[in-house]
Amino acid sequence: MLSDKYILLNQIDSPDDLKRLPPEKLPELCREIRQYIIEVVSKHPGHLGASLGVVELTVALHYVFDFKDDKLIWDVGHQAYAHKIITGRRDAFAGNRQYHGISGFPKMSESRYDSFGAGHASISISAALGMATASYLEGNHSRQHVAVIGDGSMTGGEAFEGLNNTGIAQANMLVILNDNGMAIDQSVGALSRYLLRITTSRTYNRVKNKAWNFFTGKLRRVFQNLSGVIKSSILKQSNLFESLGMRYFGPVDGHDVLQLVKVLQSVRNIKGPRLLHCITIKGKGLQMAETHQAQYHAPGCFDPVSGEILKLNKEPDRIEKYQVVFGKTACEMAKENPRIVGITPAMLSGCSLDIMQKEFPDRVFDTGITEQHAVTFSAGLAASGYIPFCTIYSTFLQRAYDQIIHDVALQRLPVIFCIDRAGLVGEDGATHHGLFDLAYLRCIPNMVVCSPLNETELRNMMVTAVGSGQPFAIRYPRGKGVQSDWMHHRPEPVEIGRGRCVREGGDVAVLSIGPIGNHAIEAAERLAAEGISVAVYDMRFLKPLDEELLHTVCQKFLCLLTVENGTRIGGLGGAVSEFMTRNRYTKPLSVVGVDDYFVEQGSVAELEAECGMDVAGIMAAIRSLCGTHE
Amino acid sequence: MLSDKYILLNQIDSPDDLKRLPPEKLPELCREIRQYIIEVVSKHPGHLGASLGVVELTVALHYVFDFKDDKLIWDVGHQAYAHKIITGRRDAFAGNRQYHGISGFPKMSESRYDSFGAGHASISISAALGMATASYLEGNHSRQHVAVIGDGSMTGGEAFEGLNNTGIAQANMLVILNDNGMAIDQSVGALSRYLLRITTSRTYNRVKNKAWNFFTGKLRRVFQNLSGVIKSSILKQSNLFESLGMRYFGPVDGHDVLQLVKVLQSVRNIKGPRLLHCITIKGKGLQMAETHQAQYHAPGCFDPVSGEILKLNKEPDRIEKYQVVFGKTACEMAKENPRIVGITPAMLSGCSLDIMQKEFPDRVFDTGITEQHAVTFSAGLAASGYIPFCTIYSTFLQRAYDQIIHDVALQRLPVIFCIDRAGLVGEDGATHHGLFDLAYLRCIPNMVVCSPLNETELRNMMVTAVGSGQPFAIRYPRGKGVQSDWMHHRPEPVEIGRGRCVREGGDVAVLSIGPIGNHAIEAAERLAAEGISVAVYDMRFLKPLDEELLHTVCQKFLCLLTVENGTRIGGLGGAVSEFMTRNRYTKPLSVVGVDDYFVEQGSVAELEAECGMDVAGIMAAIRSLCGTHE
Repeated sequence: MLSDKYILLNQIDSPDDLKRLPPEKLPELCREIRQYIIEVVSKHPGHLGASLGVVELTVALHYVFDFKDDKLIWDVGHQAYAHKIITGRRDAFAGNRQYHGISGFPKMSESRYDSFGAGHASISISAALGMATASYLEGNHSRQHVAVIGDGSMTGGEAFEGLNNTGIAQANMLVILNDNGMAIDQSVGALSRYLLRITTSRTYNRVKNKAWNFFTGKLRRVFQNLSGVIKSSILKQSNLFESLGMRYFGPVDGHDVLQLVKVLQSVRNIKGPRLLHCITIKGKGLQMAETHQAQYHAPGCFDPVSGEILKLNKEPDRIEKYQVVFGKTACEMAKENPRIVGITPAMLSGCSLDIMQKEFPDRVFDTGITEQHAVTFSAGLAASGYIPFCTIYSTFLQRAYDQIIHDVALQRLPVIFCIDRAGLVGEDGATHHGLFDLAYLRCIPNMVVCSPLNETELRNMMVTAVGSGQPFAIRYPRGKGVQSDWMHHRPEPVEIGRGRCVREGGDVAVLSIGPIGNHAIEAAERLAAEGISVAVYDMRFLKPLDEELLHTVCQKFLCLLTVENGTRIGGLGGAVSEFMTRNRYTKPLSVVGVDDYFVEQGSVAELEAECGMDVAGIMAAIRSLCGTHE
Repeated sequence: MLSDKYILLNQIDSPDDLKRLPPEKLPELCREIRQYIIEVVSKHPGHLGASLGVVELTVALHYVFDFKDDKLIWDVGHQAYAHKIITGRRDAFAGNRQYHGISGFPKMSESRYDSFGAGHASISISAALGMATASYLEGNHSRQHVAVIGDGSMTGGEAFEGLNNTGIAQANMLVILNDNGMAIDQSVGALSRYLLRITTSRTYNRVKNKAWNFFTGKLRRVFQNLSGVIKSSILKQSNLFESLGMRYFGPVDGHDVLQLVKVLQSVRNIKGPRLLHCITIKGKGLQMAETHQAQYHAPGCFDPVSGEILKLNKEPDRIEKYQVVFGKTACEMAKENPRIVGITPAMLSGCSLDIMQKEFPDRVFDTGITEQHAVTFSAGLAASGYIPFCTIYSTFLQRAYDQIIHDVALQRLPVIFCIDRAGLVGEDGATHHGLFDLAYLRCIPNMVVCSPLNETELRNMMVTAVGSGQPFAIRYPRGKGVQSDWMHHRPEPVEIGRGRCVREGGDVAVLSIGPIGNHAIEAAERLAAEGISVAVYDMRFLKPLDEELLHTVCQKFLCLLTVENGTRIGGLGGAVSEFMTRNRYTKPLSVVGVDDYFVEQGSVAELEAECGMDVAGIMAAIRSLCGTHE
């Protein structure tokens, strides 16, 4: 139970309770839900803007449909906070995104009301169509299948693939286009302009200005004449979605819950694929969030009344995020080299590519939620002599795996993949950790794969990549670096495929890649007090592997430990294992990394501890290794 | 030089020669090119239908544009035979798709006229937009960038992503929609119905029935009124492509070369993004190919006059392709289990899922060229209790890597990935080999990854997968199996994660996965004559790995060899290396597989020899390994 001020919300333990409310109570319930989301998210950072934007839509959906049987799929599930609160997780929501708390995204194992998980965009139509097809095959023609997809997610190719298949399917499908004009940053592309055009057209304004009773009456008449509509090629071709076989309704005001209930009741009983275009405001109900929509996508801690973002920064001021170091360095390099361009599929501010965009608006491209296009587009730029920083979160780069292989690596085009959020990302959890990139990139010919130990190294690797003229991947994690003086070092190229010793030692050699190496250095320092002498090598490059260094290490030390912020399978541990068996080295090797399971949410520190990748974990692994060889 | 009958073609050593022909000679040149394609492809199998369909379009494009400077990108480059013939590869085309011959796809390193390689679909718009953006940044506003994309490729999400970005770009882009109503099989989806609708509309028929001079005159007038067109929201919303910001022209007859030249001349001089809708017939000019378009997509050897497909099958009649074994078994199992469904993204006949489709048309889904959608759609079906055989070529499954991780594995949904064309595929070459799947799947939690030694094992694995209730990948190669009696064995489930000894031996243990194990068995038998005693273990499962078997083998044998039809990095060799270092086994291990480079085209036998994966190569690896430990 929540505090007393949540009078209605405290009565809602499930959607069935919601259905028992008279409709006139719904606006007040929406107000309480919105208030509760703001209260929780202000303390426990999460995705604020998207969830505030769909409070009314969520309440109306659960009021009209029965999602014990009907299916509801949220595209990019960080919209789903109100949904979680309504579906039996009101109290649990206080632990949203926390270690051993509930996930910040829908999760099948968490609730029967979460029909499908979704941390990545543009999948809801395809998943819903699978379920709708299953219902059809079972002869169930009454179950409804609802996909709620944002206009940002709609730019992703899979959404189009899903629409293209839905338009011809015999399926009870309702796609709700949640149009707030935003991805994380402003929506881009021709589709977004098109949506704006139909939203500001006379039809929409007419609808807004007339009574909703009339509208729903009008809707009903349209439904009665559906066969006529189908025959009318003019209507069918008059709208992008109708071209693709969807019946289009809207646009409707997504913040009038009573009107939404009426519209959904009307639309519910129509058969076949339908699309309802719903206009919402990201951040609705918190003025600061409505005004600064990109910033309040996931604002961190803020004042729940004023909305003001709180600075909880405990590190020295000069320690920046790797993102900022990347963004500033990209901008700096772009000043010197006019061939450098920046590309990101809708992660402009997340990756800090907006820093370069401000100075070079013509040379930075936010392509929308389009990982595949972003990579091939970068390849096209590279084929014409440009040097693209193709900047994508590790988990989303999975979307463009084929393009990396087929468009970039095979043609040896000098695209520089700046892989952000590599490794454990923390509170976003299982859908967002970037744990596979080392393994999935290492098997690709022609690729250079590296990760910097710190900010200076990140800058050095960017310079190295630009000079290399070949496909190049630089991975770095979410969050703060370790240096306060990186901006004073002019970046210098490093030798590709060359690692380095960052701490001398005698017994054990630790081979690390990426900033996790700083934990290894600290572990080595602490173990010195226990009389264990540990050398630390910063491999820098996963590929090409520094075989000369490895030969030296394998000959000199009693045992070896690899440390990486990624899956233990197939990454640095795998590469060193393969090297050792290939070269008949028989020294004991241990691999520190993430075991073969999906890690859930929590702080990065909590998750590193869970995975044995924190300083204590690395120390334990070294002690255990020393025990082995003794 | 070709034979005397190719009078015009023998004069064409480059597009510049083509440009010197008077227009009235072009139809005859098209006839000769078509004849030459038929002559070569009838003997050296390749992609016939698509290339025959674009002869006139290719000639017209090179006649009108100057692709020494302008850029031409073929989407799925097997359309590009006429292009290759015209651009200096007339004589080399006799070695099309052969070992050390020219590639069957555009290839940047092969010709300056190949602006971008393309063996996979739906990438041309993105790549062309990258190049067009580069031109724009350079201040070059006259260079033209042409992407030729089929209606099948247009169903792929990346094409939509590309269009969505092109529609707002300041770029000299011409997208030519080559609409033949086919992917490999008939095109599917709402888009294909839409294209048919505009093609059969009055506008198209009017255009067809009037003189082309009038048409181009009319086009010119339209161009002169462009600003008027832009202002007209009716026109802008009247067409799917115009909704996305492309100026739409067409449809035009793609087999009238003189008309195409005129239309292209008109369209060339317009600025900004344009789409020309061009109607072609797949297989044009060879009656059998026009009639049986799916079969003549890549028909193998055929009679160049009658078109009749020649049977060159030298194996006993009862040896079937793995594809057929899969297709028949899927159909057989679907009869017994009504929850089994089949999904394929446009590889219906290629994967032999058409066998099941004939019996269960409602339970087989060809989703078009949509790997991402196909996997998420399968996940949706699985979430509703169905058991999907999601059937995709290995190389194309790369397109759905994120969906495998995020939609299937993370949610532990029982989608069965039937990975066709795994390993070396032969003549399709570098873009099509399925060499990475073992590495890229092994790092994914919750996945089972296996590969059968032969047809009986394939069937056993399919039964095992259906019973497993979890994500399951079965990979098998292109081409013939090794058993004539597989259909007499009722498939039986095997224990997941359990390998088996298929040949006893004493000195060396070979650990293989998949049908390549048959080479290992033969190698072992031949080496027995040399006094080397080789045991062969069919691992069956890459994941979970049979660690019990590996412990036994590592203790019993002097040295180990792994054999896999995939990259040497990260696959079975990687898994066994990791196992051995983890368990401190110090026996010598060698890894047979494909080295870290992109393998080009050739027969499978030629390529296996090149990669040291044929019987001789495995024998050599074993001999070398024995030398090592002696």
